[in-house]
Amino acid sequence: MTIRVLALCGSLRAKSTNRGLVRYAQAHAPAGMKIHVADLLDVPFYNADLAAKPAAVDTLLQEFAAADALLLACPEYNYSLAPALKNALDWASREPDNHLLRGKAVAIMGAAGGMGSSRAQYHLRQVCVYLDLHPLNKPEVFANAFSGAFDHDGDLIDGKIQENVRLLLLALADWHRLLRGGRG
Amino acid sequence: MTIRVLALCGSLRAKSTNRGLVRYAQAHAPAGMKIHVADLLDVPFYNADLAAKPAAVDTLLQEFAAADALLLACPEYNYSLAPALKNALDWASREPDNHLLRGKAVAIMGAAGGMGSSRAQYHLRQVCVYLDLHPLNKPEVFANAFSGAFDHDGDLIDGKIQENVRLLLLALADWHRLLRGGRG
Amino acid sequence: MTIRVLALCGSLRAKSTNRGLVRYAQAHAPAGMKIHVADLLDVPFYNADLAAKPAAVDTLLQEFAAADALLLACPEYNYSLAPALKNALDWASREPDNHLLRGKAVAIMGAAGGMGSSRAQYHLRQVCVYLDLHPLNKPEVFANAFSGAFDHDGDLIDGKIQENVRLLLLALADWHRLLRGGRG
Amino acid sequence: MTIRVLALCGSLRAKSTNRGLVRYAQAHAPAGMKIHVADLLDVPFYNADLAAKPAAVDTLLQEFAAADALLLACPEYNYSLAPALKNALDWASREPDNHLLRGKAVAIMGAAGGMGSSRAQYHLRQVCVYLDLHPLNKPEVFANAFSGAFDHDGDLIDGKIQENVRLLLLALADWHRLLRGGRG
Repeated sequence: MTIRVLALCGSLRAKSTNRGLVRYAQAHAPAGMKIHVADLLDVPFYNADLAAKPAAVDTLLQEFAAADALLLACPEYNYSLAPALKNALDWASREPDNHLLRGKAVAIMGAAGGMGSSRAQYHLRQVCVYLDLHPLNKPEVFANAFSGAFDHDGDLIDGKIQENVRLLLLALADWHRLLRGGRG
Repeated sequence: MTIRVLALCGSLRAKSTNRGLVRYAQAHAPAGMKIHVADLLDVPFYNADLAAKPAAVDTLLQEFAAADALLLACPEYNYSLAPALKNALDWASREPDNHLLRGKAVAIMGAAGGMGSSRAQYHLRQVCVYLDLHPLNKPEVFANAFSGAFDHDGDLIDGKIQENVRLLLLALADWHRLLRGGRG
Repeated sequence: MTIRVLALCGSLRAKSTNRGLVRYAQAHAPAGMKIHVADLLDVPFYNADLAAKPAAVDTLLQEFAAADALLLACPEYNYSLAPALKNALDWASREPDNHLLRGKAVAIMGAAGGMGSSRAQYHLRQVCVYLDLHPLNKPEVFANAFSGAFDHDGDLIDGKIQENVRLLLLALADWHRLLRGGRG
Repeated sequence: MTIRVLALCGSLRAKSTNRGLVRYAQAHAPAGMKIHVADLLDVPFYNADLAAKPAAVDTLLQEFAAADALLLACPEYNYSLAPALKNALDWASREPDNHLLRGKAVAIMGAAGGMGSSRAQYHLRQVCVYLDLHPLNKPEVFANAFSGAFDHDGDLIDGKIQENVRLLLLALADWHRLLRGGRG
């Protein structure tokens, strides 16, 4: 049975290296996994005063509902999370009984300066505790965005990181199946 | 000489308890301190692809430039920061040489569930390291948003937390003067 | 098949409230679970220069080897971990291939001041990422040590926290079985 | 007036790279700064049940009392703090009114695997909030312990990191004087 993965990227920039990680993952998903990429450009900040859900939020929530597992591309802005990524998760968390998120398997990867977004990724892992998401412990994917690993379009061209992303997806498939208890 | 404080609130909701903390602070600033409250409602997500700075961002950056110190009202969403607050700091951090932020004194307060936003506040403190901001260690202001400390409009009505906010502002004034090295 | 749980308490004090949590858990383990409590009093600081493993360390490592899952009672000292608890995990992590820890289910609980050791528990969760341990997301057990929940001997007498500890153990049993993939 | 700095190293191993950072710092303290290195080998785990303070603890507390500022060499064990460093701070924090620590300037440096102990250093910074210590924001010193920056004795031989340590000490002197408000 196909594992449906929803990928979210915290950077909105077209040539972002984090989008490059997502593109690479999508093109190299293992057999039995299909990766859909959410578009966060029109998702507004969560605000309880909004009278109705904007259309982009409705679409996003349907994508969460359809996903078996999540792939989160996590930039690091000023030693913490990119607001667009956090905001997408915040929107999803507001649905009744947290049913869009709870119990799902998560794979985390990120590109940034020297430490490859690690500081942001540990904040993201704390968020997952409350959301009852289950991030993989390993592999961790920390891509240095300024070391030649990405080309000018943000495409991932480093062989070692490419392999790490493929291993991450294989681990996500196994982790999802384990968490489903053989029911999936 | 008057200390000009810029207050930012991470919640966009009109009746937010964090806005209530800001309103209380603004109305009870000590002699020699003036608190201006930023409006984050129209500040979009940071995106390096934007051709020009939106007007709301221009206004925000001017407010940062005019501020001697910052007062941050920090909600907690899913065990981490509210995107609107983080995003405002991210915008400010993009100016040359980080001149809008570096070296400024910061006071942090927050309202949330049982732990009063403490989990988000420690993430915020890590952000301050990179931004070269200097948050006060004490007092920490953790307001339980659901314990009757706020009324239905989000106004702060708990005497003990009110006092804590006033002490926070007094400490901010001292801390700002110390960091200015008597030059202020 | 019985689930063998190793319990570690970060406080060395005899009347510690964290030891009280462990005692309560041990006395109320669900059917099919047996909780053994490690004694950390004679475990020295990890030091790679030590020529031979002290006897207390040998014993501890055997206890880890025999454990299917871990129950960690996590005090909070100065907003982070108790050294004795961290040190026990550090010793265990030094064995070849991390075979004493990797993949095991973990339940976390703690007693401390107002926030019930939550700040320390999130540091502990970050440690678990590297150790490839799998802590439960829920329930989180945050016991206020100074609210009458414990008697003078450190025994847990608060009914609500008692129930929370029992739910934690039930969740640990389920989580262990899920992670074992039905092989256990 | 001479600034008296107390240096603490979280690793107990004789040839530790973190000790190497401390030795380099001690030998290259700027004019007007004297660095004393604490010996943590015989400091036991904090335990409120101990009837009397062990001699090594007494010595340590006197060293804290005599120090104007702290230099902390922070290894990373399993993504968090070395217990020996945390434990030394825990002992100091137990003195009346936190008078051994509060208000002092702190410089942090560390050597470890690829990320140079950064994960541990952010935990240390959270500890400083409670202890009312004031760590420098910049420079951060993250030394990769396995990149040839240290020789077999743990001595620091990398020119760039050496310079970074010297800059850290200069910044510590300035920061201490600023926090003393010209009274020092």
